[in-house]
Amino acid sequence: MKLIDGNTIAKSIIEDLTIKVSRIKKGKPCVAFIRVGKDPASISYVRKKQKTAEAIGIDSELTILPEDISQDALFSKIDILNKDDRINGILIQAPLPDHIDETATFNRVSPDKDVDGFHTLNIGKLCQEDPSGFVACTPAGIVELIRHSKIDTEGKHVVVLGRSQIVGKPSALLMIRKELPGNATVTICHSRTQNLHKITQQADILIAAIGKAHFVTKAMITKGVSIIDVGINRIPDASKKSGFRLVGDVDFEEVSPFCEHITPVPGGVGPMTVAMLMQNTLNAFLKKHSIKM
Amino acid sequence: MKLIDGNTIAKSIIEDLTIKVSRIKKGKPCVAFIRVGKDPASISYVRKKQKTAEAIGIDSELTILPEDISQDALFSKIDILNKDDRINGILIQAPLPDHIDETATFNRVSPDKDVDGFHTLNIGKLCQEDPSGFVACTPAGIVELIRHSKIDTEGKHVVVLGRSQIVGKPSALLMIRKELPGNATVTICHSRTQNLHKITQQADILIAAIGKAHFVTKAMITKGVSIIDVGINRIPDASKKSGFRLVGDVDFEEVSPFCEHITPVPGGVGPMTVAMLMQNTLNAFLKKHSIKM
Repeated sequence: MKLIDGNTIAKSIIEDLTIKVSRIKKGKPCVAFIRVGKDPASISYVRKKQKTAEAIGIDSELTILPEDISQDALFSKIDILNKDDRINGILIQAPLPDHIDETATFNRVSPDKDVDGFHTLNIGKLCQEDPSGFVACTPAGIVELIRHSKIDTEGKHVVVLGRSQIVGKPSALLMIRKELPGNATVTICHSRTQNLHKITQQADILIAAIGKAHFVTKAMITKGVSIIDVGINRIPDASKKSGFRLVGDVDFEEVSPFCEHITPVPGGVGPMTVAMLMQNTLNAFLKKHSIKM
Repeated sequence: MKLIDGNTIAKSIIEDLTIKVSRIKKGKPCVAFIRVGKDPASISYVRKKQKTAEAIGIDSELTILPEDISQDALFSKIDILNKDDRINGILIQAPLPDHIDETATFNRVSPDKDVDGFHTLNIGKLCQEDPSGFVACTPAGIVELIRHSKIDTEGKHVVVLGRSQIVGKPSALLMIRKELPGNATVTICHSRTQNLHKITQQADILIAAIGKAHFVTKAMITKGVSIIDVGINRIPDASKKSGFRLVGDVDFEEVSPFCEHITPVPGGVGPMTVAMLMQNTLNAFLKKHSIKM
């Protein structure tokens, strides 16, 4: 069993990005963050992204808006950032308050600054295998984990557990692309799937993104599978000060001995997401200035 | 074995559309066709679409452009139709000459007049399950064949053979949607798929869109499968005046006795495509005028 160390892979990508940014002769990439309200998780995520940007040499700026901001006022702020020539990428930290339409908000961002890859046009480009679009950070991170781990995907059977807009569907679309990693046979399973065990047992690669702690058990896999565990679930743990710990969608202890490769949770997909965001920001800058690296 | 009669189903949809159009109190839907060059198949397809529009009571107009038209000149014509308030839908008949970028051309059409469903934004909406977009006519027709034939899809295993932009991928996206027909487990196979037989044998529903005559044989299916055959392939036939006949991707003679449902070729998916185009045109009109029917 080989552990896929997301921290190490993300670090090597960040080092690579740092070198590339240092080679830029004129200007610096800049990413703008918008955070609405005071959700502790959002504060922590945005801080992590800011720190990574700083480490790479990417400028960032943060706009904090009140929880009760109107959708119109939020859109006006996005419009200003869309027009601002210094800004290459715009990230609006989810979740947004209930009174704000998330899809409409993501679609307000100019597609060429949509480093989160949530704009409908970028989702369409992913489906059309048009490399000029941005791919959402979590599925892009999954692909990089597979690439760095040299997991063979050509003609293999990838089973995606979960059909979410932000993970399941884009991961499936990436895996059937006519390039590597990709060129795989892909099955998408979800809550309605009948005989789920029989399908997951066929996976050469299993991408688990169903959001249920310890959902994938030994009975659901075949020896030699490679697993990317996207789940981040809290389970009670009296030994922790917080009273909980984070686990994936896979019962790691039970399943991992039978895997060819597997990601831990935490330390698998998680660290990749921020690295991919930075890569998208650099790409947006390079594209704008027609620089090839 | 029940034959899925695409001609009859398309006819019933066209009748339904005719009634709906007759109920419109003000104005009439109008679709604009652009045909470039003199490809005999294109001439025939556009004529068929014009006739169907006329039968329903949908206005249509045809622009014929020379084979050597520049891309700029074609785009100018599209721009005029985009701005023309009388026009609800625009269809640019494929294939286009080699010197014209097809994707760029389809993306030049205003997304709200894109009755062909080829615009990147409409493909993104399909992926996001946003019903405000247009779904391409062939995959939309496949869904209607399944609906009219009362084939159960909920939790069933749909195997899609082929990953094309215009059939394979959108069909897969429609079948995993959280609505019926849909909510299926979906596997997408293609030329690189290993152990293809083992996968197609698991299909409750098989959508064959691989473009190879008689590709699907009895050994690839399990008794009770329902098959939608999207292929239209020419094979030599000395008994025909033309010297050929049209067959699907499925070896109908060998396979059909073991099917629960199966489409013939011709007379299956083909007739649905034009009906779906007309439905999209009516929907574009209704949406523009905020009419609910």
